[in-house]
Amino acid sequence: MPYELYYWPTIQGRGEFVRLALEEAGADYIDVARESEGLAVMMRMMDHVEHPPFAPPFLKDGETIIGQSAAILLYLGARHGLAPKDPAGGLWTHQIQLTIADFVTEAHDTHHPVGVGLYYEDQKAEALRRAEEFRDSRIPKFLNWFETILARNPAGDAHLVGRTLTYVDLSLFQIVEGLAYAFPKATKRALTDAPRVASLHAAVARRPRIEAYCDSPRRIPFNEEGIFRRYPELDA
Amino acid sequence: MPYELYYWPTIQGRGEFVRLALEEAGADYIDVARESEGLAVMMRMMDHVEHPPFAPPFLKDGETIIGQSAAILLYLGARHGLAPKDPAGGLWTHQIQLTIADFVTEAHDTHHPVGVGLYYEDQKAEALRRAEEFRDSRIPKFLNWFETILARNPAGDAHLVGRTLTYVDLSLFQIVEGLAYAFPKATKRALTDAPRVASLHAAVARRPRIEAYCDSPRRIPFNEEGIFRRYPELDA
Repeated sequence: MPYELYYWPTIQGRGEFVRLALEEAGADYIDVARESEGLAVMMRMMDHVEHPPFAPPFLKDGETIIGQSAAILLYLGARHGLAPKDPAGGLWTHQIQLTIADFVTEAHDTHHPVGVGLYYEDQKAEALRRAEEFRDSRIPKFLNWFETILARNPAGDAHLVGRTLTYVDLSLFQIVEGLAYAFPKATKRALTDAPRVASLHAAVARRPRIEAYCDSPRRIPFNEEGIFRRYPELDA
Repeated sequence: MPYELYYWPTIQGRGEFVRLALEEAGADYIDVARESEGLAVMMRMMDHVEHPPFAPPFLKDGETIIGQSAAILLYLGARHGLAPKDPAGGLWTHQIQLTIADFVTEAHDTHHPVGVGLYYEDQKAEALRRAEEFRDSRIPKFLNWFETILARNPAGDAHLVGRTLTYVDLSLFQIVEGLAYAFPKATKRALTDAPRVASLHAAVARRPRIEAYCDSPRRIPFNEEGIFRRYPELDA
């Protein structure tokens, strides 16, 4: 039975971290809300299941429903060889993913510093201030953290954890993709100080399944409804 | 060997979710940064370990270091009977904790909507706008979600998961404590629509170990350096 992924059908958003893991795993899945009537199915499920997710994305595997992208990846990573098998390694991988999730939230808040209920245009002045701190302080701090982890990996600096690909490598690829879309100038600058992160991003982009996925219509282009938005006034 | 908890010594903050679990479990632990020279030890560890946490809190258990409060609770919950033993129940509990972590971030951002690098006084105008959305929309939405989970728990509405206390009950207690401190008017209003949440909060407060802890000097009082801050202008 294929996995069922439930997420907003017009954006990469937080669902993309799950899609990348499913694609790399070669897993059989349905992106439900992108099917005909799928969005209505998603909304109905959120309202009626015993374990309601607070928000998409959520994954259905048989009778199990899992919300929160990091929890979904914890689940999928163990099933598809995308995480270490030992508990300590699995938890370390998950800890990195949780920090990536924090980074994603901060990236989102650059264009929505006042709140999700308002349009960008109604919080643009606040966004200009928040984006400045994000560019000058937060992007370098997070990328430096990933760079440090890569440098300290005893199995080498090709992966964040161990000697093979894990789901956090895919998620770091996606973060760099999103930052490069939304903040091309600031990201280019920050990556010169994080060469291992840049190399990992390039290596993931070349993986056959990831490359095929990114070239396919399954990969939704970045746009100004998602988490990473190209508002040139927020970059510098 | 006691656990070592590392967190900022003058605030409850995200460390408090871990402290509550350790206290309820009756676990032996050292709150390292509150000991003499402990803060320097914490800063040194963050810089030098193979698995550096991005930020406090982190927990040291023998040779294992775990960052991210939700990951620490995932680890402790399984060891101290504060989470279901079955994998699906454990993951559902963790999913709730991750949503609590999102809620905590939003509560923090009410007074820091522009960024963590600036003082509250330098982002007060933005904070007034963000707090309004948080009070009117986000607090009710999150509390309603917890209320729904309690109502749908097949084992009864005394706990979020199953028929016994888990770490997410403790964390929900802490969220209500913090909200009631920072936004007393808005929280009182919201809790009238979430009576099960209010009952759970009261029941956790009466647990002997939690009551003893909250009455002890180990419980740092809320203050205006933490996540939940009482700025009367942000409440209504």
